Amino acid sequence: MARSSSGESVLTRAVRILEAFSPQEPVLTVSQISRRAALPLATAVRLVEELTRHGLLARDEQRRVRIGNRLWELAQRASPMRTLRETAMQFMGDLHGVVGHSAQLGILDGEEVLFIERLIAPGAVVTVTQIGGRLPLHASSAGLVLLAHAPADVRDRVLRGPLQTYTPHTITDQRALRTALAEVRRNGFAFCPGHIRPNATGISVPVRVAGRVVAALGLVVPNDEHAWSLVRSLQITGMALSRALDVRAGLL
Amino acid sequence: MARSSSGESVLTRAVRILEAFSPQEPVLTVSQISRRAALPLATAVRLVEELTRHGLLARDEQRRVRIGNRLWELAQRASPMRTLRETAMQFMGDLHGVVGHSAQLGILDGEEVLFIERLIAPGAVVTVTQIGGRLPLHASSAGLVLLAHAPADVRDRVLRGPLQTYTPHTITDQRALRTALAEVRRNGFAFCPGHIRPNATGISVPVRVAGRVVAALGLVVPNDEHAWSLVRSLQITGMALSRALDVRAGLL
Repeated sequence: MARSSSGESVLTRAVRILEAFSPQEPVLTVSQISRRAALPLATAVRLVEELTRHGLLARDEQRRVRIGNRLWELAQRASPMRTLRETAMQFMGDLHGVVGHSAQLGILDGEEVLFIERLIAPGAVVTVTQIGGRLPLHASSAGLVLLAHAPADVRDRVLRGPLQTYTPHTITDQRALRTALAEVRRNGFAFCPGHIRPNATGISVPVRVAGRVVAALGLVVPNDEHAWSLVRSLQITGMALSRALDVRAGLL
Repeated sequence: MARSSSGESVLTRAVRILEAFSPQEPVLTVSQISRRAALPLATAVRLVEELTRHGLLARDEQRRVRIGNRLWELAQRASPMRTLRETAMQFMGDLHGVVGHSAQLGILDGEEVLFIERLIAPGAVVTVTQIGGRLPLHASSAGLVLLAHAPADVRDRVLRGPLQTYTPHTITDQRALRTALAEVRRNGFAFCPGHIRPNATGISVPVRVAGRVVAALGLVVPNDEHAWSLVRSLQITGMALSRALDVRAGLL
């Protein structure tokens, strides 16, 4: 692999450039990129130039830089999550239509939930998640569902902590977390009133393919006495989605 | 930029590797990658190795290779299409709930429509589009909407052709296309019965931010006498979505 004098490969530097962008700052100047990616300006200029030629980055009218459509397209079209996302969106649309709250879909990635789809209800309780956003496994309802069904080594590492506190209701004690995970497995859902934001309740259920949990489907609703009544609709939707995925996988 | 003996940069080769994957074949062996990207096996092995280390590719249990979640996440989180897609999905969910057909959202990319979101109705007429899929501008209803509002140079290039035929109803004549575009601008929608598939009608409307057309919102419905009655619902949805985008952009 071709390396710079610092021993870093071109790919490593290109990835650092892509990582300089964020939802909060999707548009950057080349000097901002050079600072954030900790690259000499000349190197940043050259790499941005080449990434732009490949369509992985793009320039706006003021020559500022953003992620290019081509990167999105390459990532999208062959993503193993494509069938999951597309099928889930149909059910999330139905759920949204019937219960009228924000719905989201998360997968286990490393030791976090990676949210791969969301449907925001107009006037929804603020959700902390965003597409492509992440949350720790112990704090979110989607995380509890995924952690309850995660490989033992992932579960052990997360249980050893540290477990970040968001509100007084966040589960931050190892024993309490172990009990919560056993409940999630027994009940078939995670119900988390105020675990991340005092005014919001997260509810999530497992999504399975061939019996194996591949994702968590969740709602974010106000933290009030109505929240509990939504658990059943969500459970039914999770089961229907799992069934549809089995059909698409040729298992039914 | 570091180059191989063939004069190609590492980035060019990495992009060719990513391009080897497709919706039809999202999982490949390294030898398949080497053949498709026209790279020596040793080079493919080394680059796949490094791309995997960065999470841009991932290996499954049989050591076959697929697009990594990290690539998807990087492309997703700072995409300039994020606000558009997220806002549009709410309205597409509503549309889907009320009219019960597949909805999709396309943007102009080069001289094609790039579809960035779709919601498939169960039992829908087959749609030819997929997320991250493309269609020519002259043939699809989304394309006609985008082309009607495209910069003059794009319009001129597309009008000069060639204009691919899909069915006897595809518009393939330069003058007919010019007339169709004027109608789309006047009517505020494109109505394309059987232009791509005999049994399907595409209907699309413009999505605007600050008056400028940024996307086309469309339905794919059966090519029958009911199709026409859906135009109004779609137009209303397109206007509502445009208004919501203006609100999110701080314009209203």
